[in-house]
Amino acid sequence: MPLDNPFYSAEQQGPYELISIGRFELEDGGVIPDLQLAVATYGELNGAKDNVILIPTWFSGSHATWWQVYIGEGRALDPTKYFIVVVNQIGNGLSTSPHTTDDPSIAMSKFPHVRIGDDVRAQEILLRQHWGVEKLALVVGGSMGAQQTWEWAVRFPEKVERAAPIAGTAQVTPHDFLYVQTLMDAMTSDPGWAGGDYTSNTEVADGLRRHADIWAIMGLTTDFWKSGFWKTIPPVVEGHGWETFEEFQQNFTRLLFGLMDPNALLTMGWKWQRGDVARLADGDLAAALRRVTAKVFVMPIEQDMLFPPQDCVPEADLTPGAEVRMLHSIAGHFGLFGFEQSYLDEVDAALTELLATPN
Amino acid sequence: MPLDNPFYSAEQQGPYELISIGRFELEDGGVIPDLQLAVATYGELNGAKDNVILIPTWFSGSHATWWQVYIGEGRALDPTKYFIVVVNQIGNGLSTSPHTTDDPSIAMSKFPHVRIGDDVRAQEILLRQHWGVEKLALVVGGSMGAQQTWEWAVRFPEKVERAAPIAGTAQVTPHDFLYVQTLMDAMTSDPGWAGGDYTSNTEVADGLRRHADIWAIMGLTTDFWKSGFWKTIPPVVEGHGWETFEEFQQNFTRLLFGLMDPNALLTMGWKWQRGDVARLADGDLAAALRRVTAKVFVMPIEQDMLFPPQDCVPEADLTPGAEVRMLHSIAGHFGLFGFEQSYLDEVDAALTELLATPN
Repeated sequence: MPLDNPFYSAEQQGPYELISIGRFELEDGGVIPDLQLAVATYGELNGAKDNVILIPTWFSGSHATWWQVYIGEGRALDPTKYFIVVVNQIGNGLSTSPHTTDDPSIAMSKFPHVRIGDDVRAQEILLRQHWGVEKLALVVGGSMGAQQTWEWAVRFPEKVERAAPIAGTAQVTPHDFLYVQTLMDAMTSDPGWAGGDYTSNTEVADGLRRHADIWAIMGLTTDFWKSGFWKTIPPVVEGHGWETFEEFQQNFTRLLFGLMDPNALLTMGWKWQRGDVARLADGDLAAALRRVTAKVFVMPIEQDMLFPPQDCVPEADLTPGAEVRMLHSIAGHFGLFGFEQSYLDEVDAALTELLATPN
Repeated sequence: MPLDNPFYSAEQQGPYELISIGRFELEDGGVIPDLQLAVATYGELNGAKDNVILIPTWFSGSHATWWQVYIGEGRALDPTKYFIVVVNQIGNGLSTSPHTTDDPSIAMSKFPHVRIGDDVRAQEILLRQHWGVEKLALVVGGSMGAQQTWEWAVRFPEKVERAAPIAGTAQVTPHDFLYVQTLMDAMTSDPGWAGGDYTSNTEVADGLRRHADIWAIMGLTTDFWKSGFWKTIPPVVEGHGWETFEEFQQNFTRLLFGLMDPNALLTMGWKWQRGDVARLADGDLAAALRRVTAKVFVMPIEQDMLFPPQDCVPEADLTPGAEVRMLHSIAGHFGLFGFEQSYLDEVDAALTELLATPN
């Protein structure tokens, strides 16, 4: 029986539609008997079906941040011009996930391993079968969304005209693999996790708190904490603001991650650790990236400690015609939340330029 | 009864002497009835008693790394010229520590809170009472050793001629406070920790492993892991080498930190979180640093994620006459281990220059 978790609802995340693509066989050998993708769309598909922008989602995220801070009339991601499709990644708590399925063969601890490539294949089926879309004007995503963006560009080069991986890599680094492992261990070491068969995410509150606290270090930056920038961020939940950095940690990172489902986070974590387009070319990253025909803007965030420029720029160098557009945020990786207008302006400028580039 | 832990022995760490400075009252209100400092000396005190170099130790460290890679004839820290005194910090497993004391009033979970200022006061007493030393040619330390170095320069300006804080700050940052908290939570969340009253560190093996894994992310760098630099590091324990980065994690960081005592690490962690010379000037960091009369070289490591240049350089700017000497290591904060000759050459060049500067 699915667990009740109000965080994963249209009230909390914004409207979306569940679209089934049926039985789905996974790369790692598992099967999702009825894969339902949680899809949010903005704008209208035109007759030529050539105005589609696809946005895959990041770890712990959903379509929410995209409509809240990135999509809007007059912006680069303009729903009056484009048909924007945000597909929640498999296992994120909205698309078919360990705690949401009523299929006992894959519920909770039985949920199979999902890879970045599975998400991308599922999205390709969705777009083709549901809307007859064969061509994407742009794929753009941040973090794990960037992993999926890269996978799209390498796996389906003929379908991707432009790609913008933001704060993410085509090939996971050892550093990220180890980082994500600490996140996962923080949760699975909580006795309340019970091997994945807890009956409420609140039973894993301690593990979720430790998980959030590791994010607070690596997801943000020393300048973010020291400068007091966090004072400018509005409360996530009304009445739960902050005067001190400890209170910000309590009422932002701990509160937010504490609402989430541990098995959903673990499904995404396992997937993040193995995102690697080189799998499509016998382990040869350069060969994989040479397949890309999309016009690519690689967009790292300068202070990002998870996907720092030194991990992203070399991938741009291996990709034909790719260019780097550096982003800047005092929040580092969490700059993705769009706390700063200056960061959002940089994203908009780069995506506007990219969308205006013929390919 | 003290716990038996062979890691904290002269065989493992190199020869040292236990020197009692008697009853010691701590800033935070606790008392160590008989404070024994583990002291290693290299070279001879001259008649003028003006050739003394003091080295306080870092988190989880001892005098070991200093004699192994930093001290030597013809080096900056030359025992044929200087009387070099390495004092193990209180609670580090060699100086009086939770698991080493036979005094039940302070053993294990009863060990009192110790601050950076306590260490510095204890070192000042040791030097004065034991050797009649009133003047230090140089205080140099890395990480928490840098915290103590700064504390010396602010608390006893008339006694410190030169100071070289390496990869550490005068005032702990919120980011470091939160980082250290994750280290501590990794251990205290292990049921085997038992509120601090375990009977062997092996009962806290899971917690120590999680603690080590967080170090592996923040103590090192993405370039360290990605480049395979770790392949050049010799095994810590013979027969426990590594072919993959996962094996390096297992046989270096996990193995090393796994030998340590959780309460010792927790004592140091609490201390690290509160290192702040501004406490000596009513919370005014600038006023505290203005008291410094030592010639100071501030020496951050460029890729350090714990004490990055952006945290260290502003403190140099607040200190009269201080200069920055940037160090470079692919290992980031763990560059302190001295894996690279190029890094050691940089340290030697800076300290040689500093020691040659009249003050």
